Amino acid sequence: MFQSFDSPTHPDQGPARLNDLRAQMRRDGLDGFLVPRADAHQGEYVAPHDDRLAWLTGFTGSAGFCAALQDKAGVFIDGRYRVQVKAQIAAAFTPVHWPEIKLGDWLAEHLQEGVVGLDPWLHTLSEIETLQKRLKGTSITLREVDNLVDRIWADQPARAAEPAFAYPTELAGEGDAAKRARIAKLLTDAGHKAAVLTLPDSICWLLNIRGTDIARNPVVQAFAILRDDGTIQLFSDPAKFADLGPDPDIDLQPWEGFDSALAQLQGPVRVDKSSAPLAVTRILQGAKVEIAYGDDPCILPKACKNATEIAGTTEAHLRDAAAMIEFLAWLDAEAPKGGLSEMDVVTSLEGFRRATNVLRDISFDTICGAGPNGAIVHYRVTKDTSRAIQPGELLLVDSGGQYLDGTTDITRTVAIGIPSQDQQHCFTRVLKGMIGVSRARWPKGLTGRDLDPLARIALWRAGQDYDHGTGHGVGTFLSVHEGPQRISRASDVPLQPGMILSNEPGYYREGAFGIRIENLVVVSPAPDLPGADAREMLAFDTLTWVPIDRRLIAADLLDSDERAWLNTYHAEIITKISDRLSDTARAWLISATAQI
Amino acid sequence: MFQSFDSPTHPDQGPARLNDLRAQMRRDGLDGFLVPRADAHQGEYVAPHDDRLAWLTGFTGSAGFCAALQDKAGVFIDGRYRVQVKAQIAAAFTPVHWPEIKLGDWLAEHLQEGVVGLDPWLHTLSEIETLQKRLKGTSITLREVDNLVDRIWADQPARAAEPAFAYPTELAGEGDAAKRARIAKLLTDAGHKAAVLTLPDSICWLLNIRGTDIARNPVVQAFAILRDDGTIQLFSDPAKFADLGPDPDIDLQPWEGFDSALAQLQGPVRVDKSSAPLAVTRILQGAKVEIAYGDDPCILPKACKNATEIAGTTEAHLRDAAAMIEFLAWLDAEAPKGGLSEMDVVTSLEGFRRATNVLRDISFDTICGAGPNGAIVHYRVTKDTSRAIQPGELLLVDSGGQYLDGTTDITRTVAIGIPSQDQQHCFTRVLKGMIGVSRARWPKGLTGRDLDPLARIALWRAGQDYDHGTGHGVGTFLSVHEGPQRISRASDVPLQPGMILSNEPGYYREGAFGIRIENLVVVSPAPDLPGADAREMLAFDTLTWVPIDRRLIAADLLDSDERAWLNTYHAEIITKISDRLSDTARAWLISATAQI
Repeated sequence: MFQSFDSPTHPDQGPARLNDLRAQMRRDGLDGFLVPRADAHQGEYVAPHDDRLAWLTGFTGSAGFCAALQDKAGVFIDGRYRVQVKAQIAAAFTPVHWPEIKLGDWLAEHLQEGVVGLDPWLHTLSEIETLQKRLKGTSITLREVDNLVDRIWADQPARAAEPAFAYPTELAGEGDAAKRARIAKLLTDAGHKAAVLTLPDSICWLLNIRGTDIARNPVVQAFAILRDDGTIQLFSDPAKFADLGPDPDIDLQPWEGFDSALAQLQGPVRVDKSSAPLAVTRILQGAKVEIAYGDDPCILPKACKNATEIAGTTEAHLRDAAAMIEFLAWLDAEAPKGGLSEMDVVTSLEGFRRATNVLRDISFDTICGAGPNGAIVHYRVTKDTSRAIQPGELLLVDSGGQYLDGTTDITRTVAIGIPSQDQQHCFTRVLKGMIGVSRARWPKGLTGRDLDPLARIALWRAGQDYDHGTGHGVGTFLSVHEGPQRISRASDVPLQPGMILSNEPGYYREGAFGIRIENLVVVSPAPDLPGADAREMLAFDTLTWVPIDRRLIAADLLDSDERAWLNTYHAEIITKISDRLSDTARAWLISATAQI
Repeated sequence: MFQSFDSPTHPDQGPARLNDLRAQMRRDGLDGFLVPRADAHQGEYVAPHDDRLAWLTGFTGSAGFCAALQDKAGVFIDGRYRVQVKAQIAAAFTPVHWPEIKLGDWLAEHLQEGVVGLDPWLHTLSEIETLQKRLKGTSITLREVDNLVDRIWADQPARAAEPAFAYPTELAGEGDAAKRARIAKLLTDAGHKAAVLTLPDSICWLLNIRGTDIARNPVVQAFAILRDDGTIQLFSDPAKFADLGPDPDIDLQPWEGFDSALAQLQGPVRVDKSSAPLAVTRILQGAKVEIAYGDDPCILPKACKNATEIAGTTEAHLRDAAAMIEFLAWLDAEAPKGGLSEMDVVTSLEGFRRATNVLRDISFDTICGAGPNGAIVHYRVTKDTSRAIQPGELLLVDSGGQYLDGTTDITRTVAIGIPSQDQQHCFTRVLKGMIGVSRARWPKGLTGRDLDPLARIALWRAGQDYDHGTGHGVGTFLSVHEGPQRISRASDVPLQPGMILSNEPGYYREGAFGIRIENLVVVSPAPDLPGADAREMLAFDTLTWVPIDRRLIAADLLDSDERAWLNTYHAEIITKISDRLSDTARAWLISATAQI
C-alpha cells in the first residue's frame, strides 16, 4: 500500500521544537528565521530529510512556510489549507492567511526591527526580491545563513539515496543526446553559455532518467549544469547512478561539487529566478559570472509531449480507466450495504490499480471525501478523520497512478443512495463546465486563462463558483502537477499541441458536500470542419475514459450538444475499455453508460 | 445632415505634399519625420486643423501614422484599415502592417543611420520610450522638433474655436466642485500635488462642460492642471468659454500659458505617460519638477457612471431605439422594392434620429455595408463606394446618436430578401455570443478579458472567429469609445458597477458578407438568486431595445435558455418602446418580435 492513513503530524511536539529553534536563533543573533515547505528543488512533495516545516509545526500541506520570531510564529497557508492547518498545529503557532497577508507586511507588523535569517538554498530569488522590496525602508534586514532547523533536528532523516534508472527511449520518444542538443541550441540562440537546472523533473526529462527519491514523483534529486555544446554536469549522490552506464557527455559529480562548478562557469549563464535557489545566484555573483535570468529551458519542451509520449499516456489512461471502472462497480455494489469508510474506499481503489501489476506509485495521495469532507479541496483521509460512507451523501474521489508509460489523474463524484435535486443541479452545472472545456476549440495563441471561463459560466449564472484553477499541466511518468500550462486566471502561457492538462471544475458547499469532475486532456490541432475560417485552431483530445455518474445528472439542464457529448463519451468508453474488464465490471459499465 | 458622403481623401495630392515635406526635412537636417493621426489629445476624431496624416497621405482611418524618409514613406495601419488604405494612398506611400511590423524595426531596416524628427506634442512618452528602446544600439537618433507639416501646409485650417457650454448637473448627477474635490482627494492620497489632464473627455467630465470643437465627440479641446486642493487651471482659447460664468476655482488661461504653468508646478505631478504629450514630460523635466507617472485620475471615476447618468443614458437609449425601429420598419418596406443604396440607408437613418428633435450629433460616422462591404469592419460609405442594396445580401448598419442625456451605439444586421442557411448559421452563432455576454454573471474582480470567450465560443466551435474586441467602453454624451473598460483579450481592468460597454460580436467573410450584433450594456450588482454562494457577483443590464432580425436566426442552434432570453428581450421591447412609435412602426415591431 502506497498511501498511509497515519496522522502525519505531531502538534504536541511543535512547541518544544519551536523553543529549540528560538534558542538557536538567539545563539546566532537572529530575531527571526524562515522555514519553508520547499526543498532546494521547489517541488510539491519533499523527501523526509527536507520535511522541515512539518517537523517544526506539524503542518503537512504541499505549500506554505513558517516565520518564527521570538514571541510569535506564523504559519502561512493558502485557501486550500485553512481548515487543515487548525487541526495540525499547536497554539504556539498562529495560522496566517496567505497570500492575502504578505510575509513582508506580517514581519513589518510583528517585528519593529531585527535580523531575519533564511537558508538561501530553500528560497528562490523571485521570492526574496519581493520580500526585500517590501522591507525597504523598515529596520528589518535579511541574513542568509546555514539552515537552523538542520542544526537542531537531532534525528533528521538522511538525504534520499534511492537508485536512479534509465527511462526507455521507446517511451520517451527522443534520446537524451537529441534532447540535450535541442536544448543546447536554445541556449546558443539566446547567446547563453550554460543553463543551471535545479528542478528534478527537468533533469529527469532531459536525461531520460527516473528515480524514487521522493514519494509520488518518480524523480531523482539532482542539480545540473547544461552547456551550450550539449554536455552536462550532474550533481547528486553518484552511488545513485551506479546502474546507469557511463556517458562521455554526462559528467557525474557529488553534491559538494556544485558550488565550485558554478563559480568556474563562463557567462552568460541562464538561471530561472522563479525556481533556482537564491544560493545559485549568490555563488555566481560571488564569482562574477554573468547571469541571464530566464525560464528553465526544459520546461516548455517537456510540456509539449511528442507522439510517443502521447501514445504511452493514452495506453496508461486506458489501463487506469479499467481499474477505475472495476473500482466504481465495486463501490456501487458495496456502498449500499453500509459499513464502508473513506479509508476502505482508498484501500480498495489502490488495490484495483495495483492489480494492473504495473503500478509504480500513486501519483498523489488519494483525496476521498464523503459528505462534508468532500468540500475540503485537498482532503487526505487519516484514521482520525475517516467517515463512514452514508446514503444521501456525495463521495468525491480524486486519485491517479504512476505507470512507466504515463501519469494519470482523475476525479469522479459518486452518489451514495438517492441524491437531492440540489446536489443534482450543482453536479450538472459542474458537468456543463467540464464538457464546455472538453468541447472547446480555439484560435492558436490563446492561453489557459482564455478557456477558464468556459468551465465556470454555468455555475456563475447560478451565482456559484469554485476557488481553484480549472486545470494544471500533467507530466508523463513525472509530476502530476507540471508547468507552464494551466487552465486558470493566472495563466498567460499559450496552449500548444502536446500539452496535457487536467479539466476539473468543481463546486463545494462547506459542511455539506463537494463535487469535482476531472478528466485529463491533451492539446491537439483541431480537426478540419466545413465552413471553418482559414485560421489555425486547437482543441482537446480526451485521455480519461471513465463514466460520469448519471444519477447525479439533471438531464434537463444539459443542452442537446452537451447531451450528445456525454452520450458519445459514454459510448466510447464501452468501445475502448470493455475488453479490459471483469464480467461484473463490464455489466456495471453497460448500465452506467446508458444513453441520456 | 451630419454625415457626408464625399470621398474625404485626395491621393493625387499626396506625392507633391510628400515632396514638400522632404524638402523641409532637408532644410532642417532631418532624414525622417513622423506624422501621426493623433492630435495633442490622442482622441479618435481630430479637428481639421490636426488632420495632418490625411492631408499628407490621403489616409483617413482613425488610427495610424506615416514615417516619411527621403526614399520611402510608410503608412502604418492596423487590421481594420488594410483594405481602405489601398484606395486612399498614392504609390509614393507604402502601406505597412502594424503592429505586426513595429516602427523601430521598420526604421532600422530602411534607414541605416540618420536623424528622425517628431513633434513632441503629438506623441506620448510610452510611444517614444518603446521606439527609443528598439533604436538603442542603432545609428538612428530621434529629434524633437516643431511640426514640419504645419510649416508646409499653406491652407491649414485654423484651430477649432467653437463655444463650450455647461453640462447640467441634473444630467451629470454630481456638481463639478464635488468631482474636483473627489479627484483631488485621490491625488492627496497618492501624495501628488497636481495632475496634468490632456484628454478632452476627462476635462469635460470633470468640469461638467461640453463643446463642439471636433465632430462626433461633444468635447471642448483644452489642457488642464488640477491641484490637490481641487482648484484647476484650464488652458484653451478663453473666448470659447465666454458663455460660462466665472468660477474662482477655475483659472482660465490661453493655450500659450500651459508651458510656463507646468514649469512653475510643485511636484510630484501626476502625468499619464500613455496619453499625455511627450512635451509635457519634457517641460516638467526641464524645470526639474518631480513627475509621478500614473493613470489620468479622471478615467476610472468617469467610467463608473452614477445613477443619474445611467437614468439619462437609459432614456437616450429608449429614444434612440424608437428611431431605430422606425428606421428598420422603413427599411423592410423599401428595400424589397429595389433601388436603395447604402447612402440612402444612412441618410434615412440619420433622418429618423433627427426627427427626435434632440439629436446633437451622430456618435460616429454610420457604418452601412451591404454584401461584401459588410465585411469591411470600419467601412464608411462614400459616393464612390455606395452599393445598391440587393436581395440575398446582408446589410450591416452600425450607428449611434449623441443626445444630451446619453450616447448610443447599436449594430443590427438585416436580411435583404431570403438569407442562405449558411448566413443564418453564422448569424445565429454571433447571436449566441451576444446572448452569452448579455446573460453573463460573474464574481466581482474579473476583467473584460475573462468574459470575451463567452462571446466567441459558439463561433470557435465552428472554426470561426472575428478579429476585433467584443466590447468597448462608452461615455454619456461623451466619446462613444472610452476606457479603461473593455471586453477584450487586451483588457486587464476589473469591471465595476456603472461601466457602460458595447457587446458586439461579429463574423466577417471577405468578399461576401459581414455580421455584427451590438447592444450596449451597463455593469450592475447581480440580482439575488436562491442557492447562490455568499460571494459578490456582477451582471449586465441591457440598455439597447431594438429587435434582432428573426429571419436570420436558425432557431435549432439556440438552446432553450438562449431562446428564452431572446423572447423575453423582444417582449420587453414591445413594453418599453411601443408607445413611442408611429402606427406603421408599431405594427412592424409586433411582427418583428414574434416569439421563436
